[in-house]
Amino acid sequence: MGKGPVTRYKVEVLDGDKLSRREDVVVTEEPLELRLEWPGRPAAPLTVTMRTPGADFELAAGFCLGEGFAVRPDALKTVAYCTDVQLTREQQFNTVTVTFDGPPDREPLERYGVTSAACGVCGQQSLDELAERAYAPVDPVEAPLDVVLRLPDLLREAQPTFGRTGGLHAAGLFTADGRKVVVKEDVGRHNAVDKVIGWTVLNQHSRKGLVLVLSGRAGYELVQKAVAAGIGMIVAVGAPSSLAVDLARRFGITLAGFTRGERCVIYSTPGRILH
Amino acid sequence: MGKGPVTRYKVEVLDGDKLSRREDVVVTEEPLELRLEWPGRPAAPLTVTMRTPGADFELAAGFCLGEGFAVRPDALKTVAYCTDVQLTREQQFNTVTVTFDGPPDREPLERYGVTSAACGVCGQQSLDELAERAYAPVDPVEAPLDVVLRLPDLLREAQPTFGRTGGLHAAGLFTADGRKVVVKEDVGRHNAVDKVIGWTVLNQHSRKGLVLVLSGRAGYELVQKAVAAGIGMIVAVGAPSSLAVDLARRFGITLAGFTRGERCVIYSTPGRILH
Repeated sequence: MGKGPVTRYKVEVLDGDKLSRREDVVVTEEPLELRLEWPGRPAAPLTVTMRTPGADFELAAGFCLGEGFAVRPDALKTVAYCTDVQLTREQQFNTVTVTFDGPPDREPLERYGVTSAACGVCGQQSLDELAERAYAPVDPVEAPLDVVLRLPDLLREAQPTFGRTGGLHAAGLFTADGRKVVVKEDVGRHNAVDKVIGWTVLNQHSRKGLVLVLSGRAGYELVQKAVAAGIGMIVAVGAPSSLAVDLARRFGITLAGFTRGERCVIYSTPGRILH
Repeated sequence: MGKGPVTRYKVEVLDGDKLSRREDVVVTEEPLELRLEWPGRPAAPLTVTMRTPGADFELAAGFCLGEGFAVRPDALKTVAYCTDVQLTREQQFNTVTVTFDGPPDREPLERYGVTSAACGVCGQQSLDELAERAYAPVDPVEAPLDVVLRLPDLLREAQPTFGRTGGLHAAGLFTADGRKVVVKEDVGRHNAVDKVIGWTVLNQHSRKGLVLVLSGRAGYELVQKAVAAGIGMIVAVGAPSSLAVDLARRFGITLAGFTRGERCVIYSTPGRILH
């Protein structure tokens, strides 16, 4: 089998005046490449989704129904992990091929999502590909613990719409001493992050020394956006995923999660939150 | 301008023994089509993202940096709404064109996301396209209020991993009298829904009379998956988006949100939650 649903990391927990080091259990996030095949057409990649390993065949079957490729109950012939011998074992368990009994009920005209041309996928490979892009190095940021702990409240106070709908994610950029630079809301958390980083682009505002604050969880895609923007610290109210932690460590980004009240958990480069 | 960040709906609120009708404020969700253009290449669609209107140019600029298309600070020349006269006003404000000063820093080889070939996009059009697919009609479901209010707890109790990581979404299918059929977790909530619906596909289990329960918010994509699966009732712990409500109403799906304690808010076909 491939990776399990959780991954263990050594972390630092800051709780009031106390610092403790312990092992934390983080939800696993790994790419899954979905390939479709039908009589007369060899298997071809359709999409890559970031998912928690487990029930991968169910995921593939549900995706094919949801997107309209397999509407007839008997449209799916087989669902299987890739057995391509050129793939590593990890890649094999991150690649699922769905075979149809004939042409799919809706023709997949385009590829969906962030599709790689590589044969097979794995989380490590995603990090490698990102490292090859010509991004400027991430700018290390240091911030005092008391500011870090205040950032979620400052973000919430700057949200104009959430209180009215309860349905919005927020992202914000703050200075390391707690001054708000920009806060945006969106129904999608990746959009909220794009909006605040895009604001710095359009306003030619330096991102040096800024902290990205997230109202929810920190997944791979959100840390990837910080890498691209050279932002050195992420403070999230919610939990991180395994690939988010791996990515933050690889690029030297400080990642704090579960930032609530007097407490936060530091998943990478802990020395930069000063206490 | 296009639509605002919130949309108003008439809803029913069930709170203990009390039923009240009022107007509710829901976060707006609308598609945004992003087009890229550079010298020698006319504007072409790259992706469609479901977003909350507002800061659309920031969203476009941030997306282009995050995906590596515009890494150099001066790579973006202009960002503008589409002025194509063939588009309706609503479509114009859902279509943003980014112009580069030369070839992008990374060539966009494929289209991303659910890209439509149509010229311009709007939420209504997304619903129309969905109606044209050959899905079986949605199966109306009736469930007693006391069961509906218990479903979030039953979902939580069936989650094996959440308690250990705090980082997982869950989706479940339950009968209208509260019996668990299947529950799955994932770092992505769309994956969790694909997994439970895919489970019914692979196990040839009828979806007739089942209720889809969501641990978080209900957005367009999740209701779309219920439409494809013919599931007639969705019970969410969190808030819905505007396009999720529109879609549920269009296809006759009962949609309950903010299902917590003794209270839930019913956004469509309210008569089917019996009290």
